[in-house]
Amino acid sequence: MELLKKEILKNGEVKNGNILKVDNFLNHRIDVDLMNKIGKEFYKRFKNEKITKILTIEASGIAIAVITAQYFKVPVVFAKKVLSQNLDREVYESKVYSFTKDKSYTVRVSKKYINKDDNILIVDDFLADGNALTGLIDISNQGKANVKAIGIVIEKGYLKGGKKLRDLGFNLQSLVSLSSIESGEIVFE
Amino acid sequence: MELLKKEILKNGEVKNGNILKVDNFLNHRIDVDLMNKIGKEFYKRFKNEKITKILTIEASGIAIAVITAQYFKVPVVFAKKVLSQNLDREVYESKVYSFTKDKSYTVRVSKKYINKDDNILIVDDFLADGNALTGLIDISNQGKANVKAIGIVIEKGYLKGGKKLRDLGFNLQSLVSLSSIESGEIVFE
Repeated sequence: MELLKKEILKNGEVKNGNILKVDNFLNHRIDVDLMNKIGKEFYKRFKNEKITKILTIEASGIAIAVITAQYFKVPVVFAKKVLSQNLDREVYESKVYSFTKDKSYTVRVSKKYINKDDNILIVDDFLADGNALTGLIDISNQGKANVKAIGIVIEKGYLKGGKKLRDLGFNLQSLVSLSSIESGEIVFE
Repeated sequence: MELLKKEILKNGEVKNGNILKVDNFLNHRIDVDLMNKIGKEFYKRFKNEKITKILTIEASGIAIAVITAQYFKVPVVFAKKVLSQNLDREVYESKVYSFTKDKSYTVRVSKKYINKDDNILIVDDFLADGNALTGLIDISNQGKANVKAIGIVIEKGYLKGGKKLRDLGFNLQSLVSLSSIESGEIVFE
């Protein structure tokens, strides 16, 4: 997606040599016009998958998911990272290891909101090692739902997450993929 | 907003006698069609306020904010509750006390994303004691921005937050307000 590449080159920042920060349009300030173009693009790519639900993970994923859901005309469910006293006791949960934070956290979805008739589109902002996605797939599997497609805004193509999931047969598509981000320079695949 | 009242009566749950849980359409599963009607309603109420930015707080506020922002054609900024290594060092921050959790947390917004030319619409899902809103107002004030309006989906009208903020002169509007929720029964104002 050329527009997104331009946006990343214009407004993305590379921190500590290898962390891409897109706070300006995706992770803190949200460019809703761009988000709409992202949603339309996911719809174009996955509209034949008979999607019934979009699954994502809080917090940044929510913006992408709800805008995208307008095109599919389906509800969104977001997995919770923070245990809330308001969450149902009956949940599917999965442990996710975060490389960047070097710790594990648990993601949870109420059993009411994933079921065997669901054709799920998972969306998220970033794909690095794929652990968060693997957690969402695990939760979908626990609910016997069908993960029909995975849409990622920015894939770190030099990490192993995307390859691992594609090798497992998932229809995973990224709108942009980075081939490297060394010494502060962003290179697209 | 009659539609929202109906949705609350149909799908809201009252927990522990006095906690309204709207996981089915707002806080976990998101009914994007309803969200669009909420966004349109906020636009109808606040379209003359020359809004330049919508400010909210993660996580549930993000869905409301981005959908609403489409009508105003402005960006969203969401305050972070969780300290991320990726967040700018230069932030406005405010301490928020949560009655339900009986603890304080800090909300943060990068100084880059709030400035003196901003006319801000703050949106959030719930208004109870108003502490989260007060934090967002504090952050807006630190950035010398102008809080033009506050849009709340569900106000707990029997708590003091809404009155306090209206008495301070804020243009605060709730789409529905509860006058009581005792012994499991939801009563609207």
